[in-house]
Amino acid sequence: MSEAHAPVHPAPTVPATSQVSPGLRTPPSVADECELLGLVAYGQLAAFTQLAGDSRHAEDFDTCLQLAHLASAALAGQGEVLDRITTLGEDATDRLGSFVGSFDNFVDRTAPSTWWEGLLKGYVGFGVAHDFLQVLAERFDGPSRAVIDAALESFAPDALAAEQLAAAAAADEVLGSRLALWGRRLVGEALGFVNDLLSARPGLVRVLACEPVDPAEQSTSGAKLFSHLTAAHSRRMGRIGLTA
Amino acid sequence: MSEAHAPVHPAPTVPATSQVSPGLRTPPSVADECELLGLVAYGQLAAFTQLAGDSRHAEDFDTCLQLAHLASAALAGQGEVLDRITTLGEDATDRLGSFVGSFDNFVDRTAPSTWWEGLLKGYVGFGVAHDFLQVLAERFDGPSRAVIDAALESFAPDALAAEQLAAAAAADEVLGSRLALWGRRLVGEALGFVNDLLSARPGLVRVLACEPVDPAEQSTSGAKLFSHLTAAHSRRMGRIGLTA
Repeated sequence: MSEAHAPVHPAPTVPATSQVSPGLRTPPSVADECELLGLVAYGQLAAFTQLAGDSRHAEDFDTCLQLAHLASAALAGQGEVLDRITTLGEDATDRLGSFVGSFDNFVDRTAPSTWWEGLLKGYVGFGVAHDFLQVLAERFDGPSRAVIDAALESFAPDALAAEQLAAAAAADEVLGSRLALWGRRLVGEALGFVNDLLSARPGLVRVLACEPVDPAEQSTSGAKLFSHLTAAHSRRMGRIGLTA
Repeated sequence: MSEAHAPVHPAPTVPATSQVSPGLRTPPSVADECELLGLVAYGQLAAFTQLAGDSRHAEDFDTCLQLAHLASAALAGQGEVLDRITTLGEDATDRLGSFVGSFDNFVDRTAPSTWWEGLLKGYVGFGVAHDFLQVLAERFDGPSRAVIDAALESFAPDALAAEQLAAAAAADEVLGSRLALWGRRLVGEALGFVNDLLSARPGLVRVLACEPVDPAEQSTSGAKLFSHLTAAHSRRMGRIGLTA
């Protein structure tokens, strides 16, 4: 599919500053470290809110229950992320609060009209969020890396959603086509959201411009961020039998 | 206030079977033990759903965050309750699922029209639920009692809600009067809900008819359930400066 790697709406444009080639390994500043930790913590809250809402609208009780537990687990580790911000000398609630509203545009533009659209939204949205945060996390080691890695487990591609989506798409070709189309819309919005976030948050761009701690992770350097995210999305869609 | 102990809507009528005087200390059957555990676990899910919804509609970010964490914590201990049902030889999901919909009548009849009404609904509803489940829990010792006691901590009167309600009612006399009236409606519905639950669930009535493990807890025996719940509610309303 020629459009597989070209989400059309909106076209993401990487800010010039994130194109900076990584130079000598200089760790991010403490303020930029707190910016990433704040984003992770806010992502945990956003994941909680999304999953709790999905749970309420689940079509069967087992799914409702599993989504509720995913929501609960997503927020359960937030205390450790906020504690890390406090340890670094910042007001954790202020840092967290600075992200209020910053996800709204993505959420509003991707309001699902069916249960399946909602499930795919979570699968795609959390997937891109996980991959993006992981790329940023690769610039850290020590305690911050540990708490971010633990938090990222909550964003890991959801096996429950994947299984249900794959089965539904396989059983109903029309639904599968519609979901493939919706997936392209979702990833376009998600990449646009990442782009907006980087435009608004120079601290995150500076983090991205740092070299990864592990030289093996150079392949996801800042300049290649969007192609990395797009390729990971395509593989994730492939796993549920949909064309990205 | 003459109406303090007489919620008017609906008038709860204790099922005759729950009036059985406690006799020799006979522990509840395993099936009835699982019935109570199932109710506790379903209560945790209902608390999660309610608090997560409240979080979404909170007026400020701090409250949103705190309610989200309360929701997450309410569900976090459910695994232990369900594990206990499994250990007792039952299918935990089946037992839990048997309660689906049983709270809907209460939830639907007490839809709050303002933020404060919603907050008071949680304060009153969780309070009555906590007290009711505690009376039932007093019939058990050992592992079931331990997991129920741990679960009940999630339903303990919410200090955050209490503080906010007390401050709001003290600052605005008209709001205080409205909330006092709403509180009477809420407790009437909550007691009616307990009554409906006992009518539909003979296992819970049999639990209630057992003697408490601790003789000091005889004062909350089954026959006195509703006066105990009403008195506890009145004290709880008193703590936030409202007349029950």
